[in-house]
Amino acid sequence: MLPPSEKALVPFVSVDNMMRLVHHIGIETVLRDLADYIEEDFRRWELFDKTPRVASHSDVGVIELMPTSDGESYGFKYVNGHPKNTSEGLQTVTAFGLLANVYTGYPVLLTEMTILTALRTAAMSAVAAKHLAPKGSHTMAMIGNGAQSEFQTLAMKAIIGLNTVRLYDKDPAATRKCAANLAHTGLTVIPCTSPEQAIEGAQILTTCTADKQNATILSDNMVGSGVHINAIGGDCPGKTELASGILTRSDIFVEYPPQTRIEGEIQQLAPDHPVTELWQVITGATQGRTDQRQITLFDSVGFAIEDFSALRYIRDKVADTPFHIDLDMLADPDDPRDLYGMLTRAKA
Amino acid sequence: MLPPSEKALVPFVSVDNMMRLVHHIGIETVLRDLADYIEEDFRRWELFDKTPRVASHSDVGVIELMPTSDGESYGFKYVNGHPKNTSEGLQTVTAFGLLANVYTGYPVLLTEMTILTALRTAAMSAVAAKHLAPKGSHTMAMIGNGAQSEFQTLAMKAIIGLNTVRLYDKDPAATRKCAANLAHTGLTVIPCTSPEQAIEGAQILTTCTADKQNATILSDNMVGSGVHINAIGGDCPGKTELASGILTRSDIFVEYPPQTRIEGEIQQLAPDHPVTELWQVITGATQGRTDQRQITLFDSVGFAIEDFSALRYIRDKVADTPFHIDLDMLADPDDPRDLYGMLTRAKA
Repeated sequence: MLPPSEKALVPFVSVDNMMRLVHHIGIETVLRDLADYIEEDFRRWELFDKTPRVASHSDVGVIELMPTSDGESYGFKYVNGHPKNTSEGLQTVTAFGLLANVYTGYPVLLTEMTILTALRTAAMSAVAAKHLAPKGSHTMAMIGNGAQSEFQTLAMKAIIGLNTVRLYDKDPAATRKCAANLAHTGLTVIPCTSPEQAIEGAQILTTCTADKQNATILSDNMVGSGVHINAIGGDCPGKTELASGILTRSDIFVEYPPQTRIEGEIQQLAPDHPVTELWQVITGATQGRTDQRQITLFDSVGFAIEDFSALRYIRDKVADTPFHIDLDMLADPDDPRDLYGMLTRAKA
Repeated sequence: MLPPSEKALVPFVSVDNMMRLVHHIGIETVLRDLADYIEEDFRRWELFDKTPRVASHSDVGVIELMPTSDGESYGFKYVNGHPKNTSEGLQTVTAFGLLANVYTGYPVLLTEMTILTALRTAAMSAVAAKHLAPKGSHTMAMIGNGAQSEFQTLAMKAIIGLNTVRLYDKDPAATRKCAANLAHTGLTVIPCTSPEQAIEGAQILTTCTADKQNATILSDNMVGSGVHINAIGGDCPGKTELASGILTRSDIFVEYPPQTRIEGEIQQLAPDHPVTELWQVITGATQGRTDQRQITLFDSVGFAIEDFSALRYIRDKVADTPFHIDLDMLADPDDPRDLYGMLTRAKA
């Protein structure tokens, strides 16, 4: 049997290689680079083929496919969300993704995206904060100290110059873990014992909890003027984190309204409640924050274009490194019409 | 760095290993087994989570995701269709697929599906012919002698006892290739120089051509009574193979009407033209062929449940064989909430 031709091979970045690649580049550099790739794609938002993600819900979680295309490349992510997994020693969220060439339909990259999603979600939050948070924001309350919390914090440091984070989780062990992980990053890390304590003096309030329910992580009276709320955890139908009173006092910015209206905090509001698309702030078509006393809310659910940006980044960065293997994933007979002949000749 | 835990590993079946597995089992046995798995899933059709595939069209082709779930397992296929690829030395269709556990959201199998799709498409056609073709059908006209043609023919042999195939393609080289591949299969193989010659004496007419256009591979006056038409190649908007006059004289059987109305031969008909869902014939809820003089038409576009059946089959068969490798595709920190800690510890 001849070895498969190069056309048949798809570069694959394993979890192990993703970690090596991130350390090879440096975590904070990766976060800044991802922010640049995301901003670049948000600036050309209109040319993307956009669709709400395709979700398959069960009693215990959801499995989603998130495709998009810029006309030259096509990308999709497979991602699950299973809050009960943590108690069984599994990840709440795992993901992998693929980038393909639109002209040939052939895949050009397969990669783990559990780590990559954590990085791009954090970079996305920091991009939004860069455009929406009060000028000179230096302190963030990080409510929910699970798998995403360190990435969120480090992205805010790398991209908008955060110097202090105030941590709260209903499970003190999660806060201890997060604080230990952030101990040598140059940030001032302040573990707190209540959400009220965590938000003291913070200009940015990030909520990232995982319960699949309508929760009230921030109640209306906790949120004063002049803050930016970065709401990450309300990201599927029936799962929200903020009191609706906060929403009606905020100027709300979203990724892709048709998806956010179903999945985001704004599922609590009327379907025509005004929201601003973040890409229009990034292009300058619309203003972001206009007043230091305003409450801005980034109602983030994660959109396919962000994964597309992350896939483009990994494709560009991994090419000349050893941090991938080639998978024999595509049948490539010498004569394209002779798939059967390839199969029968393989017997020999 | 510790090796990844077993939870993080996803069995991957490469093209090379798929070919080894198929030969290990035997091609005709694989086709019969796949027909059994497909029939089993069609019998429990109603419990599946069904959605038309998610297509991303470009000028030169299409990239599709085809997800479904039976509540215990979730499967999807990535597949492209690029008719112009053949002239560039690439496959028209390449595919890969994934099966996951609905309870955890964790993938349990990643596999090439270019070869597997060819096998399942052929098995599906033979399942339909088993229920719809005239009793004692022994001769098939195979019009379009590309990558799918040998699989179609062999499945009809393995599943309904076909003994003769009459080949036609507008490119004689394709017919020569197909005839050579089928030379030692025990079938009588008759190369023909026109579609009219190919359909002489055939009870089953299979059309499988790849042009992305509304073509007329079979015209109305070519098709007499008492035949079963197995129309494979009309499978996306703007791509059909049969004269509409044939459709109005036929009893039409389809996989999933919401998808077939958009993609199949019946895109030429009114949106309420009566069709029968094949699964209802298989369960016995509806009759298939009721008269030897009837024209039955299986307007096949390929549906996600068939890929699901194929993924289930490969998962069951590959488990105790050496025909897979394990991919480190899922991040699996010791503490599920400590993804960042796993990343930073990997640096050491």
